[in-house]
Amino acid sequence: MPDCGDCVDCRSKKSNLCSKLPFKVSPWMPRHETSRFTDLKGEVLYHFLSVSSFSEYTVVDVAHVTKIDPSIAPNRACLLSCGVSTGVDAAWRTANVEKGSTVVIFGLGSIGLAVAEGARFCGATKIIGVDLNPDKFENGKKFGVTDFVNSGNCGDKSVSQVINEMTDGGADYCFECIGMASLVHEAYACCRKGWGKTIVLGVDKPGAKLSLSSFEVLHSGKSLMGSLFGGLKAKSDIPILLKKYLDKELQLDEFVTHEVRFDDINKAFDLLIEGNCLRCVIWMDKQVSS
Amino acid sequence: MPDCGDCVDCRSKKSNLCSKLPFKVSPWMPRHETSRFTDLKGEVLYHFLSVSSFSEYTVVDVAHVTKIDPSIAPNRACLLSCGVSTGVDAAWRTANVEKGSTVVIFGLGSIGLAVAEGARFCGATKIIGVDLNPDKFENGKKFGVTDFVNSGNCGDKSVSQVINEMTDGGADYCFECIGMASLVHEAYACCRKGWGKTIVLGVDKPGAKLSLSSFEVLHSGKSLMGSLFGGLKAKSDIPILLKKYLDKELQLDEFVTHEVRFDDINKAFDLLIEGNCLRCVIWMDKQVSS
Repeated sequence: MPDCGDCVDCRSKKSNLCSKLPFKVSPWMPRHETSRFTDLKGEVLYHFLSVSSFSEYTVVDVAHVTKIDPSIAPNRACLLSCGVSTGVDAAWRTANVEKGSTVVIFGLGSIGLAVAEGARFCGATKIIGVDLNPDKFENGKKFGVTDFVNSGNCGDKSVSQVINEMTDGGADYCFECIGMASLVHEAYACCRKGWGKTIVLGVDKPGAKLSLSSFEVLHSGKSLMGSLFGGLKAKSDIPILLKKYLDKELQLDEFVTHEVRFDDINKAFDLLIEGNCLRCVIWMDKQVSS
Repeated sequence: MPDCGDCVDCRSKKSNLCSKLPFKVSPWMPRHETSRFTDLKGEVLYHFLSVSSFSEYTVVDVAHVTKIDPSIAPNRACLLSCGVSTGVDAAWRTANVEKGSTVVIFGLGSIGLAVAEGARFCGATKIIGVDLNPDKFENGKKFGVTDFVNSGNCGDKSVSQVINEMTDGGADYCFECIGMASLVHEAYACCRKGWGKTIVLGVDKPGAKLSLSSFEVLHSGKSLMGSLFGGLKAKSDIPILLKKYLDKELQLDEFVTHEVRFDDINKAFDLLIEGNCLRCVIWMDKQVSS
């Protein structure tokens, strides 16, 4: 995500969506629409997501570079370039989770767990994880998940009914981290009337529609929000999160379940697909036991 | 709207949806589910919306009573029991319109005009009214409307496209005051990426659904909110609004276009249906020229 520092969005505290270099999936450098790479034969190699991070050397626009404390290990710092930072900041920056509040997280993959970590960090006292796989609860506890709902095991009740009962009328914040537009309605239905916020983080298929009852939106006093990169502003927020990590207020270590050498990059993809890892760090220049 | 002062909602600054006496359309007094009225023959007369205001004498639960400065004329105070207060507070309390911001209002009926007045009061600098009837603009100017879009006259463009062009990428706040779920999508489409808020005030038919693109919710950083009574907390906010009226910061006089005697209550309904009045005050005990 860019942070040019100049445009109205980057200068505003309220937006992290740079207008000068809008986020897009492009094969080029953002400002010049050219590549800076060729292979040994002189053929153009393309960029990807502005940072081209699967290469030993890269060229990155200054808007995509954040200077950090050099004492921080790269296998921790890299977690904040996406994913973990997205979840943590969805709780911290987008939802602004208040101390003592109740949070529900639909989906305990790494984004969901990062939301849990962000909510824990913000002082939430009840963090309910929802997942089809009950094994996820054990892992979730490391990141502050206090309660679990097995969404495949709610009997006659909907997940939102179960959560409304557990929370005496709904949670203060509900996060959809799966990517099913239909679940957003369930999340909305179990956030607290009067002030509940539903935050959309999951990426559904293109064209997917969210549907909410007009009556409920009007009468409930709830709000629905979404954010890219959790609302995080890279240049200002990443250093803050790393400081919190050094001060042991924010956990990062637990997210790294695997590390591989660059040669084993395909193994990293296998691990991702198998669902057995949270984050797998790829080292460019170091032998690691994986 | 009740304000019991005791429940978790009434004690919270974030909610105006009393849990002790939930808002409902009921023929009874809220706490006891009885009527306190009979006609001369002893037949029960029913309550309506907790205040039964179309009668010379009434019994009202203390949760529905707000003490106000007795120097304020009843034909101004009454505007804050609903309608005008709803619109003003939707801008002030629900959206929290910031100074210098840009606002779009879909529908310039009295609720929409009250939103305009609230936005003007909060310091919005550009207030765009959207309506099918261009005559509404002239009236809107009294309440701070600075620009007008005739939604029946946008050519090949959608209303949201026209507004995105006028505002260089969207308004800070968009209010749907018509009651068409399908318009909420248009309002959402022309609120500013990064921080735009869409506020639903219009009442659509029961069962109407809002539909939003999942991708847009995730990527835009916008939020969608609704509120009953504009998020206003009766006992604390009505006295504040009346003070602002006395200090000439908030306009109320312009909303009263007609006044009738109680005998002419049916004429008041006719005026409402004809669309020629904003607010019509019914006097119980006074001869008025209507």
